Amino acid sequence: MTDTTNLIDNYIAIWNEADPRRRRELIAQTWTEDATYVDPMMTGTGRDGIDAMIAGARQQFPGLRFELAGAPDAHHDRVRFTWHLKPEDGGDAVAIGSDFAVVAADGRLRSVTGFLDLVP
Amino acid sequence: MTDTTNLIDNYIAIWNEADPRRRRELIAQTWTEDATYVDPMMTGTGRDGIDAMIAGARQQFPGLRFELAGAPDAHHDRVRFTWHLKPEDGGDAVAIGSDFAVVAADGRLRSVTGFLDLVP
Repeated sequence: MTDTTNLIDNYIAIWNEADPRRRRELIAQTWTEDATYVDPMMTGTGRDGIDAMIAGARQQFPGLRFELAGAPDAHHDRVRFTWHLKPEDGGDAVAIGSDFAVVAADGRLRSVTGFLDLVP
Repeated sequence: MTDTTNLIDNYIAIWNEADPRRRRELIAQTWTEDATYVDPMMTGTGRDGIDAMIAGARQQFPGLRFELAGAPDAHHDRVRFTWHLKPEDGGDAVAIGSDFAVVAADGRLRSVTGFLDLVP
């Protein structure tokens, strides 16, 4: 596993983490203190803002979980990857998106921009 | 045509512009002074650096031109779009890529990150 693969695996795990304390730990490992997130539906700034955003978003998709689709594509300090939002008990994706990230010098995520490829 | 559509049309036109003077004019209209570009093969910083990078890149694909594939997908100050590099006299794309841009408050491109979907 490369550093990028680990980083993006952790990014996905954060969205799927139900335990608030464990999610905060993962966020601190994965995002810089001043990180930013923006997609068509929501934004978050800083670790606290991103945590609050994800906690809120998780309430909108009970019974669903994010999966990474394929390997992340990285060059320089940039990464792109595609995710599927799927029922926890199996079945087709109900939403698909592509995210674009900038990685800080310390290997953490500095910014993520999300786009939607398939929406319910 | 939206501002975003115009912006990305101009971005593509710059890559296809053979006249150095006209290309510089388009770059000044389209990119901020401190803009940055990065893809897996090249980088450019500032209008001068981006102009030099594009001038050099154009020598690598004589007889080919870029075309926008589909409408740009924009939210907040972010845009993504896909391009095809095609023979000027028709035929299939020889390369395909997806670019992700951040737009400045003045409507110009602040940064573009390119990724390759199909390479020769």
